[in-house]
Amino acid sequence: MPDNNEQAKRLEQTIYDTIALGKAMKLRVSELTANTISIEAPVANANFNIHGTAFAGSIYSICALAAWGLVHTRVQSEDISAEVVLARAEIEYLLPIDENIRATGSINEDDYREFHKRLLQKGKASISLSVSAQEGDEVQARLDARVAVKIISL
Amino acid sequence: MPDNNEQAKRLEQTIYDTIALGKAMKLRVSELTANTISIEAPVANANFNIHGTAFAGSIYSICALAAWGLVHTRVQSEDISAEVVLARAEIEYLLPIDENIRATGSINEDDYREFHKRLLQKGKASISLSVSAQEGDEVQARLDARVAVKIISL
Repeated sequence: MPDNNEQAKRLEQTIYDTIALGKAMKLRVSELTANTISIEAPVANANFNIHGTAFAGSIYSICALAAWGLVHTRVQSEDISAEVVLARAEIEYLLPIDENIRATGSINEDDYREFHKRLLQKGKASISLSVSAQEGDEVQARLDARVAVKIISL
Repeated sequence: MPDNNEQAKRLEQTIYDTIALGKAMKLRVSELTANTISIEAPVANANFNIHGTAFAGSIYSICALAAWGLVHTRVQSEDISAEVVLARAEIEYLLPIDENIRATGSINEDDYREFHKRLLQKGKASISLSVSAQEGDEVQARLDARVAVKIISL
């Protein structure tokens, strides 16, 4: 597996190259390991709403890309060629975000092992993970996502 | 209340002026009445993902703006000056969207009357509504949103 920084840059480039809104949101993959991810984006110039705070759709998109990006990268690092898509998600907005959207997510290793076993057995499986937008200890939004994965070839 | 076409144009302008991603998503408010709304956006050039279909974050954002825009416009048309925000939402992706995201939502009039009563009594209230992205009879995504409204002044 490449080092974290290199992996983060690679995912960021993938998002910029393949997802139109990635560039518009000016996001940055600031951390990426086998089971954690952080994606950030500024509110000013790119992600503001009518109240001058972060747009609900931007908060959702950054959190959803964190969930998708973490599973996409992990599966790819295991040399599994697969289609990774978001199947469903639920988001709760708790506090307005004034300056910086920072979405942090993680994979539970037990969940991942279960998911990985099902994926290899059945050729498809899905995994749930949580992402939060937060500043310090203050959680501003919480997303629960279900990411579905389907093997194309091993 | 201004006619539907004028109302739709006005909401579209508000989104373009005040929400950074509105312009990036190239959305268009194609229908707006007191209790129904449709917002559309093209997949090509603006809202594609790594699979060449509509980006999950764009589908969510268009559906969420339909929910927000419908409540925002309805409340404003009753001369209530209020802050309207999305409190929570749940989305399910059922089918990939290839060409055009078309989000259609409606307000249930009984729900609205209940919401309106609570809003005037307490100065704040929230209302649930459903939006679907669909082409003909084929539902591609379904969003359930809760929109919170707080009166600033009457």
